[in-house]
Amino acid sequence: MKMRIQIFFILSLFSSISFASVQDFCVADPKGPQNPSGYSCKNPDQVTENDFAFSGLGKAGNTSNVIKAAVTPAFAPAFAGLNGLDVSLARLDLAGGGVIPLHTHPGASEVLVVIQGTICAGFISSANKVYLKTLSRGDSMVFPQGLLHFQLNSGKGPALAFVAFGSSSPGLQILPFALFANDLPSELVEATTFLSDEEVKKLKGVLGGTN
Amino acid sequence: MKMRIQIFFILSLFSSISFASVQDFCVADPKGPQNPSGYSCKNPDQVTENDFAFSGLGKAGNTSNVIKAAVTPAFAPAFAGLNGLDVSLARLDLAGGGVIPLHTHPGASEVLVVIQGTICAGFISSANKVYLKTLSRGDSMVFPQGLLHFQLNSGKGPALAFVAFGSSSPGLQILPFALFANDLPSELVEATTFLSDEEVKKLKGVLGGTN
Amino acid sequence: MKMRIQIFFILSLFSSISFASVQDFCVADPKGPQNPSGYSCKNPDQVTENDFAFSGLGKAGNTSNVIKAAVTPAFAPAFAGLNGLDVSLARLDLAGGGVIPLHTHPGASEVLVVIQGTICAGFISSANKVYLKTLSRGDSMVFPQGLLHFQLNSGKGPALAFVAFGSSSPGLQILPFALFANDLPSELVEATTFLSDEEVKKLKGVLGGTN
Amino acid sequence: MKMRIQIFFILSLFSSISFASVQDFCVADPKGPQNPSGYSCKNPDQVTENDFAFSGLGKAGNTSNVIKAAVTPAFAPAFAGLNGLDVSLARLDLAGGGVIPLHTHPGASEVLVVIQGTICAGFISSANKVYLKTLSRGDSMVFPQGLLHFQLNSGKGPALAFVAFGSSSPGLQILPFALFANDLPSELVEATTFLSDEEVKKLKGVLGGTN
Amino acid sequence: MKMRIQIFFILSLFSSISFASVQDFCVADPKGPQNPSGYSCKNPDQVTENDFAFSGLGKAGNTSNVIKAAVTPAFAPAFAGLNGLDVSLARLDLAGGGVIPLHTHPGASEVLVVIQGTICAGFISSANKVYLKTLSRGDSMVFPQGLLHFQLNSGKGPALAFVAFGSSSPGLQILPFALFANDLPSELVEATTFLSDEEVKKLKGVLGGTN
Amino acid sequence: MKMRIQIFFILSLFSSISFASVQDFCVADPKGPQNPSGYSCKNPDQVTENDFAFSGLGKAGNTSNVIKAAVTPAFAPAFAGLNGLDVSLARLDLAGGGVIPLHTHPGASEVLVVIQGTICAGFISSANKVYLKTLSRGDSMVFPQGLLHFQLNSGKGPALAFVAFGSSSPGLQILPFALFANDLPSELVEATTFLSDEEVKKLKGVLGGTN
Repeated sequence: MKMRIQIFFILSLFSSISFASVQDFCVADPKGPQNPSGYSCKNPDQVTENDFAFSGLGKAGNTSNVIKAAVTPAFAPAFAGLNGLDVSLARLDLAGGGVIPLHTHPGASEVLVVIQGTICAGFISSANKVYLKTLSRGDSMVFPQGLLHFQLNSGKGPALAFVAFGSSSPGLQILPFALFANDLPSELVEATTFLSDEEVKKLKGVLGGTN
Repeated sequence: MKMRIQIFFILSLFSSISFASVQDFCVADPKGPQNPSGYSCKNPDQVTENDFAFSGLGKAGNTSNVIKAAVTPAFAPAFAGLNGLDVSLARLDLAGGGVIPLHTHPGASEVLVVIQGTICAGFISSANKVYLKTLSRGDSMVFPQGLLHFQLNSGKGPALAFVAFGSSSPGLQILPFALFANDLPSELVEATTFLSDEEVKKLKGVLGGTN
Repeated sequence: MKMRIQIFFILSLFSSISFASVQDFCVADPKGPQNPSGYSCKNPDQVTENDFAFSGLGKAGNTSNVIKAAVTPAFAPAFAGLNGLDVSLARLDLAGGGVIPLHTHPGASEVLVVIQGTICAGFISSANKVYLKTLSRGDSMVFPQGLLHFQLNSGKGPALAFVAFGSSSPGLQILPFALFANDLPSELVEATTFLSDEEVKKLKGVLGGTN
Repeated sequence: MKMRIQIFFILSLFSSISFASVQDFCVADPKGPQNPSGYSCKNPDQVTENDFAFSGLGKAGNTSNVIKAAVTPAFAPAFAGLNGLDVSLARLDLAGGGVIPLHTHPGASEVLVVIQGTICAGFISSANKVYLKTLSRGDSMVFPQGLLHFQLNSGKGPALAFVAFGSSSPGLQILPFALFANDLPSELVEATTFLSDEEVKKLKGVLGGTN
Repeated sequence: MKMRIQIFFILSLFSSISFASVQDFCVADPKGPQNPSGYSCKNPDQVTENDFAFSGLGKAGNTSNVIKAAVTPAFAPAFAGLNGLDVSLARLDLAGGGVIPLHTHPGASEVLVVIQGTICAGFISSANKVYLKTLSRGDSMVFPQGLLHFQLNSGKGPALAFVAFGSSSPGLQILPFALFANDLPSELVEATTFLSDEEVKKLKGVLGGTN
Repeated sequence: MKMRIQIFFILSLFSSISFASVQDFCVADPKGPQNPSGYSCKNPDQVTENDFAFSGLGKAGNTSNVIKAAVTPAFAPAFAGLNGLDVSLARLDLAGGGVIPLHTHPGASEVLVVIQGTICAGFISSANKVYLKTLSRGDSMVFPQGLLHFQLNSGKGPALAFVAFGSSSPGLQILPFALFANDLPSELVEATTFLSDEEVKKLKGVLGGTN
């Protein structure tokens, strides 16, 4: 009997304290307004365990494309529980000869771990030094925030890796797409990269760029 | 006369400059959407001095409970002016024999100052070292972010302390409640803590846990 | 033909990857709710190059006022593309004898570069040391976050400078306005600054303060 | 016997995991180099519980001075365990008529709780609005980062308050000392505050300023 | 000939610009002083590609222990290139029946991806709600910063997962070790957890705790 | 006489309070160890006003090179007072036809203001959209952190601009130098950019790359 009463007291203590729980997490509500810190928060009462899990990394991306590779991101809002947190994931599938072209993540550093196959990876620093490694199963490598880097299947069979980022919004800018797959005028691409007009127009043709 | 004109010029200068005032503060509007950085901001025109003050810490919490202790937080939205800032407060009341059980604050470090009585406090580091102090009136102690810590009345009369956090959303996870006052299945509690089934079920009974 | 198909594959790869683009930027939507991280984001589909540019710094501010100076800020929401980013700008125009009175920026450090004329600038540290420099065209100076500083035209002709801040919301608190151009009661100004009643009332008269 | 072996395995597991313990805290070593993030860390093997506690707030500061007030800070390196963390404390003692003059903390917001007496406190925003409150025992108030604020004993007896900051290095700039207690030339003080030469020189005389 | 000269000009341009390269990364020099932001930086001239790679995650940890599990971290200084960056990794090996006991990371959120087997994982929020998921190969789950969580092999064969953290110094506090594998006096464990003296002493015996 | 004593009291008060001044700034000491937060701090007693000023932006960079442009940075340690702060500057000189090639700043956003001439500037987002503006004297434009951008003299005479960054260590990676002016093997450049072997080797020849 006394214990029942004590439970009551504890729970009332707890409910006043649990007021502190605001902002343990902020599951993304894609229908609310966004702002610099991320998506609006879903009502906590409607948050379930499914908001903190993501099954999209379980199967290989489609590598039947020109780069023989696929990137499958696990970012908000698809992985809603990541919203506003300091971490996210992606899956890299590289068929034989596959490559993730030179790219940057403006908003976070990346760390990669090889699950299968052999990957040649590298990045270039602000001091213009190149850091290259050939990575086997279980090897990991870090790519500091915002620096150009790439991953390339240097083995015989397919390769699989997972990469993690220090932000739920790392961003992704793929160099050849940024140069050749949008409407940035060819003359500006040429003036700002020293590439030849012929080369730029050829690659714009391949990658769907205009102008 | 000339001075009047100057005032006009100054005020117009000022009003253009005061444009910069966005985001000195963001008083919580609990009716707007939340997001990872906190609550939406109340319309600045409706903000008053009362939004920056809080009277809830003025009286002792109710310590007539099993732990003979009470925590009274001063967090947003009750203390609306704290929203988005880097600091908050709480009051600890510990009757004779009172204890704030082992707990963590996921989002901030804590610093405590004893106002009355004697408190034995401690925390455990990632390196599994224990740091214990007996604190008298006026003594202060810091508990680094996210580490398990506790406070216990080790004197004869009641004890009072104020604690501050380096965030307006420090969070609070009370260990025995996390283990024994929710629906985490007993078998999982046992497997992940090495506690016996008997002990887990007894404490679930006391604290209101199920499963 | 094969190339067309490859383009299709690449673009589908790209569109899945571009999911990562959330939060490269968050152009201010002044009609949405604000929060501690800034303004709500404008719909990305409606963002144009004009959101990332600002022409308001192109002409001199009106210096026909008591301080013979003008500050023209380039902050959000007027410069909408800055919202949530870590940088902003302002233009300082100082006519002969002009001065930007002692002021602070609560939210960011400032760096100034002189475009025209000669400026005497200085700041005071927490340790109460004064750092003073006379700056000519092309000279730059930094004012660490939150410290009192000023800029004063110490040359013969007009002076022009641009200042940058490490936040899109640096804030701005101008000391004589904070003391003498609002309703802070004179007795409180006097008690908290050691200024005489006569001096306070005189300056309240000049600057439009009440009480 | 088997248990002994298990303990061995667990401890070896633990010792490999505890590798993660770097940077739970970084107790200040005042003899090592400082850097933007704070003091160098003391060797963890030499850290004791005393590094995380501070007894300097236990007695009243000396209020036998012109402002009839004293500020006793609990910052690193005196309170070594705070180094690099996001929180710190100070004690305010205000004798009858005592005042903490207008001041700012460039590096953190402040929250105050009154322990004894009655305090009139206020701050001024970037928008030049004044927020004033009279606070009694147990009342708390927040002063957003970098804004001018003051505390003044508005009761009959002495007043005591504790203040917390959202940084271990909040900084402190006291306005009348910044204006009148250093070598900032009087003509610059006057030009940048609109104060009269007479007033500036009088207060420089009182507060020990030169030039 | 002209081109040679141009190269000279470009390289001199480049070398002046590359001055900007400070702090792309700060490879840990474990012999220099540590501070709140991490380890001192190795001389950039001595940094090689090996500093950015780590091979320690390639083989299974030893799971022949009481928890039938092993955690292999990839943190600085072993993975020196991570120092000061916002991301790190660890490998989890769980033999049949293996469990990573309840634990927290004080300094970062965690995201897990299952490589092999079936893992039951869960965390408890500040609001004392439990979020549980059974994860198969390729499934991922996030554990927000500082909250108690666990991973348990719920399948038949061994399980393997990689986890990433949003910091190079996430920290790690394992609950049963914090309670029972150090010198925290039994009476304090009991008072702050509600566990019985018998249970505490039994587990101290198993896990090597004293007092 | 009494006033002299009061000065003494005030100054002793002040000297105890000024303890708080640690970390207003941390002027770079290039001889001490670096770490993730920047350079070690110079002894505050040896800091002078010259540490907070920089005269290197006062004269035009040498544009007699292939890009007809020069970037003059004002970063630490040359501009020692910036160390650890959140802002920095650089000067851009663009002779007729000059161009700052495509580049990124991994560590900060950039805002540019045109002082003389006409500049065509643009950036490419993670969503692969291009934002282009032609900027005249006084116009400003922001380039969000880490995204590829360029500046090009699109007028007739020389152009001058100042750019500011939201960090004292923004970093700088110039795309054509990253691709063609180091030892990244041609076959890797080709595989990760889709450029032809002929084009890569030609530009490596021009820009001094090897392999």
